[in-house]
Amino acid sequence: MIVVVGKENPAYVEAAGAVPVRFVESLEHETFDGVQAVIGHLPADVLDKARELRWVHSPSAGVDSDLTPEMIASPVVLTSSAGNGGISLAEHSILLMMMLNRDVPRWMRAQAEHRWDHYRHGELAGRTVGIYGLGNSGLDLALKAKAFHMRVLGVRRRPEQPSPNVDELCDFGTLLSESDFVVVTTPRTPATTGVFDRAAFARMKPTAYFVNISRGGIADDDALLEALTSGQIAGAGLDAHGVEPLPPDSPFWSLPNVVVTPHNGATSDGTLRRSQEIVADNIRRFVTGEPLHNVVDKAAGY
Amino acid sequence: MIVVVGKENPAYVEAAGAVPVRFVESLEHETFDGVQAVIGHLPADVLDKARELRWVHSPSAGVDSDLTPEMIASPVVLTSSAGNGGISLAEHSILLMMMLNRDVPRWMRAQAEHRWDHYRHGELAGRTVGIYGLGNSGLDLALKAKAFHMRVLGVRRRPEQPSPNVDELCDFGTLLSESDFVVVTTPRTPATTGVFDRAAFARMKPTAYFVNISRGGIADDDALLEALTSGQIAGAGLDAHGVEPLPPDSPFWSLPNVVVTPHNGATSDGTLRRSQEIVADNIRRFVTGEPLHNVVDKAAGY
Repeated sequence: MIVVVGKENPAYVEAAGAVPVRFVESLEHETFDGVQAVIGHLPADVLDKARELRWVHSPSAGVDSDLTPEMIASPVVLTSSAGNGGISLAEHSILLMMMLNRDVPRWMRAQAEHRWDHYRHGELAGRTVGIYGLGNSGLDLALKAKAFHMRVLGVRRRPEQPSPNVDELCDFGTLLSESDFVVVTTPRTPATTGVFDRAAFARMKPTAYFVNISRGGIADDDALLEALTSGQIAGAGLDAHGVEPLPPDSPFWSLPNVVVTPHNGATSDGTLRRSQEIVADNIRRFVTGEPLHNVVDKAAGY
Repeated sequence: MIVVVGKENPAYVEAAGAVPVRFVESLEHETFDGVQAVIGHLPADVLDKARELRWVHSPSAGVDSDLTPEMIASPVVLTSSAGNGGISLAEHSILLMMMLNRDVPRWMRAQAEHRWDHYRHGELAGRTVGIYGLGNSGLDLALKAKAFHMRVLGVRRRPEQPSPNVDELCDFGTLLSESDFVVVTTPRTPATTGVFDRAAFARMKPTAYFVNISRGGIADDDALLEALTSGQIAGAGLDAHGVEPLPPDSPFWSLPNVVVTPHNGATSDGTLRRSQEIVADNIRRFVTGEPLHNVVDKAAGY
């Protein structure tokens, strides 16, 4: 039996073949008798109840909230939806970068006031983007950045993996000091939490922009706020935030050099479609005994 | 003698070698004695006074306003700055396309009100962009669109020219009916003026967006307005307008499905640098007798 949290989906039933699939609204009253697999966020406290459970698939690309101590200790295989939102997040990165260096909020204010406000702005061509994390979104961003005639620097944990469209793999310090745009595309893991601290922002150029489209907490919000208000960096485009939803009294909303979007960069029609394709493919693999895709390295955190 | 309208530029003096260069604020009191070349917009009425004039270089990429009847009739060679803004306009096209299909104005309103407004939006991947005109900006847009995983259709006057990154050259009707984004990148010429009329908009999908980053007048503004208010098309991103500056009482400013920018897409640091490179190179060519770049075909209008 495979239990899916969410709406009925014939593609999942078909992928499961002879194995029954049950669609539920939540796991709250689930007994887990005879349940081998769950597609959904599994509450930590049910792991010891679900004796036959062998596989959990998270509907998220980043599994930081699925990786409870219980899950880490459990033999249950965790897979993620990594790759579902990569393309959409790479689009969102380019959008935020252009919104910052063309000052789109200024045009929007002028439009609201029917005012012709013509000014000189920057372009992406010729500038350097430093991508922190070369997974699905980072590599797709590199592809796009090359079509924007940019220089592409990248930092990744596994430099032996192929990094197409990246001009140079570098260390974190070089990424910070040479980039006109630093874009965070890495998962949140113990190794990435808080790495953008005061010292990191101090190494960035005063003309550089910080863009975060992956997870809050990778930047220390106090350090980021200080860098943005002191002129240490030029501005930021933030889709991911330390606290979500961003509280109404957060100072980030009203900084003139910050574009805030509500962790919404990947929430596209395409992401939904790719998520469902990933789940259907993994269900098929599970029932036929093929290796699952997107198996999470519980030690690495993604 | 070469007369340059604009600020002193040592690169131009160097390119001119032994030929003297004079920098002026305007051509108003110019006698044109001994002037072989002018870098600037030439008033039509001085062409018969400037007897030694052989070459005029327009600081604009689109020369619709330089091509007076007197200039068309004159043997003086006209060159343009075509290519100066292509990259920046292609960036602007992608920006407007994403602003429309992610509804950036909605996020900007939410940010102003400190409101977490999370919703599902579109992405560019998988959609079709139809590029009307495959010159410098059109071809650079095609390159970018492929990196955004889009299908690229194109209409061009000279289909025998290479069109890299264009999946299909097609006729105007196919461009209109198959595109999710129709982007106008063509110069304004007698052949393109008013081609986006009522009949053209009626052939577009109701979910499609119209983007104009080249010149007003290529679309009939009344027809565009009607298409936007009747739901005939989904929205528009307009950097070029029929009347510029767009008057404060223009209805385009306040349509909820329109993003207006003030003919500002190409006004970047990079465009300025490329413009100066084009001028310096053409001055060098002029004084050494090499063929000039960007010679305008006065009959074609660009």
